Amino acid sequence: MISIPSSLRRLIKELAEIPSIGPRQATRIAFFLVSEGRTLAKALSFGIHGIEDIATCTRCYFIFESSGASDKPEKTTENGSRSAKASRDKEGLCDICGDPNRDPSIVMIVEKETDLISLENTGKYKGRYLILGQMPKTGLLEDWQKERLRGLKAFIGEKLDGQAKEIILGLNPTSLGDFHAGLLMKELAGAAAKMSRLGRGLPQGGEIEFADGETLGSALEGRS
Amino acid sequence: MISIPSSLRRLIKELAEIPSIGPRQATRIAFFLVSEGRTLAKALSFGIHGIEDIATCTRCYFIFESSGASDKPEKTTENGSRSAKASRDKEGLCDICGDPNRDPSIVMIVEKETDLISLENTGKYKGRYLILGQMPKTGLLEDWQKERLRGLKAFIGEKLDGQAKEIILGLNPTSLGDFHAGLLMKELAGAAAKMSRLGRGLPQGGEIEFADGETLGSALEGRS
Repeated sequence: MISIPSSLRRLIKELAEIPSIGPRQATRIAFFLVSEGRTLAKALSFGIHGIEDIATCTRCYFIFESSGASDKPEKTTENGSRSAKASRDKEGLCDICGDPNRDPSIVMIVEKETDLISLENTGKYKGRYLILGQMPKTGLLEDWQKERLRGLKAFIGEKLDGQAKEIILGLNPTSLGDFHAGLLMKELAGAAAKMSRLGRGLPQGGEIEFADGETLGSALEGRS
Repeated sequence: MISIPSSLRRLIKELAEIPSIGPRQATRIAFFLVSEGRTLAKALSFGIHGIEDIATCTRCYFIFESSGASDKPEKTTENGSRSAKASRDKEGLCDICGDPNRDPSIVMIVEKETDLISLENTGKYKGRYLILGQMPKTGLLEDWQKERLRGLKAFIGEKLDGQAKEIILGLNPTSLGDFHAGLLMKELAGAAAKMSRLGRGLPQGGEIEFADGETLGSALEGRS
């Protein structure tokens, strides 16, 4: 048996702990970093170290650059925006949750940070979010996911007099998403005056001819 | 537009530079490291830093733990094995190329380090290797691959009196592998008394009924 240096073995094991990376890909990545990818390896080691200044919002669990840890001066566009940011920072709130122009009584639950970013980039949503993490296929929420839902309910109890205006379940329009939505509806029963999901229909640029029956059905029901 | 902290954006960009990782997976990995994977992120940053003590063999391009950089004392099983390793190290040779019990006049060309490891773990090969890297689908060798072949030819010229006993083309048994083998045969014409490829036939545990025609044909030709 040929022996792989222990430092490389350790790196392969660590890489394989990242959810989307399997042991084979971990091995390939490690070998790449050790042979052709030396310069990149150095940059990566620093890069991973560099995300230490990123904090997670105590309310919605989205990330934000904590001003305390950052050593670059921020550009301030208006008077006082700097100190406003600092005070939000103290509460541990992200740019969205700390924004006084957003409605905290409308809450959209999403699975991933990237879902939030896509939705946010439409510029059409003025509520806040809750990132719940990837929903388990088993339908049993992880403990930390239950904790996040408890946090939301506590927020609704304390700051919204026991009921949010609306909770939007921003889950994928798949049968798994439907299953998870049902689950969350039960978990959050009574917490909002309205529970909704994202609208379904034909995607922009899609063709009726090639749309599946489910999508066409939704498009008919949700016509405007 | 929601803004992602610059340190995170940088990390995503770096991760996406790893060959098998696309921009979407890079984004997911970065978000994982920044939210749930904090501890792993720390370990990874050190882990990637830790592979700095791994050197690449100047002859076959396989990796080995360079004794100079390692701070752990090695176990020595026999007298003098320690200093033998140190002297190999000075030449920049890996454990295989530096092993006096292996025949340097038999050379197996493989694409990946993991191919070498799989072959080496059979315990049935006593020659040396040359890692040539993933063969480009275009059929045009990269400059650094040509350089490695030049190095092999120089070695054969200087140390093997101009001809190796055998060069084994350890490429995958696919039509792409066949194409690349043809290419290397031309590149290395005259450099070895014998040019061979790995045997083809039924894999251990396979069933004749389900084997494809090519495999069965090879099994018939190569029967023993």
